[in-house]
Amino acid sequence: MIECSRKIDFDAGHRVIGHKNKCQYLHGHRYSLEITATALELDELGMVADFVVLKKIMKTWINTNFDHNIILHKNDHKLGEHISKCTGQSVYYINSNPTAENIALHLWQDVIPLLFAKSSFRILRIKLYETPNCYVEVK
Amino acid sequence: MIECSRKIDFDAGHRVIGHKNKCQYLHGHRYSLEITATALELDELGMVADFVVLKKIMKTWINTNFDHNIILHKNDHKLGEHISKCTGQSVYYINSNPTAENIALHLWQDVIPLLFAKSSFRILRIKLYETPNCYVEVK
Amino acid sequence: MIECSRKIDFDAGHRVIGHKNKCQYLHGHRYSLEITATALELDELGMVADFVVLKKIMKTWINTNFDHNIILHKNDHKLGEHISKCTGQSVYYINSNPTAENIALHLWQDVIPLLFAKSSFRILRIKLYETPNCYVEVK
Repeated sequence: MIECSRKIDFDAGHRVIGHKNKCQYLHGHRYSLEITATALELDELGMVADFVVLKKIMKTWINTNFDHNIILHKNDHKLGEHISKCTGQSVYYINSNPTAENIALHLWQDVIPLLFAKSSFRILRIKLYETPNCYVEVK
Repeated sequence: MIECSRKIDFDAGHRVIGHKNKCQYLHGHRYSLEITATALELDELGMVADFVVLKKIMKTWINTNFDHNIILHKNDHKLGEHISKCTGQSVYYINSNPTAENIALHLWQDVIPLLFAKSSFRILRIKLYETPNCYVEVK
Repeated sequence: MIECSRKIDFDAGHRVIGHKNKCQYLHGHRYSLEITATALELDELGMVADFVVLKKIMKTWINTNFDHNIILHKNDHKLGEHISKCTGQSVYYINSNPTAENIALHLWQDVIPLLFAKSSFRILRIKLYETPNCYVEVK
């Protein structure tokens, strides 16, 4: 079996509603997303997926939605609206607390299936690093 | 399936009895332990395991036992006793040669089951880096 | 189950015939190969495989064949001959386009089985990083 993986970094802010320590406060991370693809056979160039294409598809979405933005629980919209009013940015809302787990699950369940629906390869798993020492994996 | 992982570094010394090259000599490493947990479902905050809790539990044990200490084979107690006498530290003994494999197996079999016995998550595997280029994995 | 892994870096050049963007041009990477071994039981020292031995076997082959060299498709021999004529080096040819995938498959199928045929451990998988953000895995 052969797989190919691409790491893509982005900077975003979040806060975890209900957390008892400092994760409850609005803060930011340099996230790193690692996306892994496989295919039954290599394409005519000898690739599972062109690293450039893998990056382009994923990074375009990330740049539009996550990078240099704030990711909030939809229940946290009051905070989000204040931010949008002050800065003009479109805060990104998800249906659950924006932990690394839920951000990864959102990418895995809602975003990636659409982004790669027409690809010759299949996305096997993703890793999302919240910091260099903390990450989640969904497969 | 969703997993979460946390890396924890520590500095320790060891030597491998019977090694034919320089691993036989007492020396040290900056080890990095990566501990991976999973759970059937996310907790009420949206986490497999709070990165902070995962670190706290593991790091407390590591700070007490491994960090800034020497890990030796129990058969190497003569060396250990000399060290303890000179420095006052409690050398950590394991039942086998303190290779990365045996240190990881000790953590996996003897330490981690007790440390996380009451956790809502389950430890799936650990990686132990002896150097940035050399590591073992137990699962 | 216990595994041990060793990373080995090397510098090599390649080009991907037929690529529409800049991968078609001759260029170089600092590759990083991660080789993972397992064994039914640890050896008498307490190791799956001595990190030093794992490195020595693999690195000797890499230094002789890949490091500070150019890896080309055998169909690209005209380019390779010009290079050899100018520099005196023995360009390394593989039977397919030298993408990360095909270089890894060549190592996995043709090189590693011979290199480790007499080892007490078994190679489980390899990862080949073309850059720190792009890698393939074969198992």
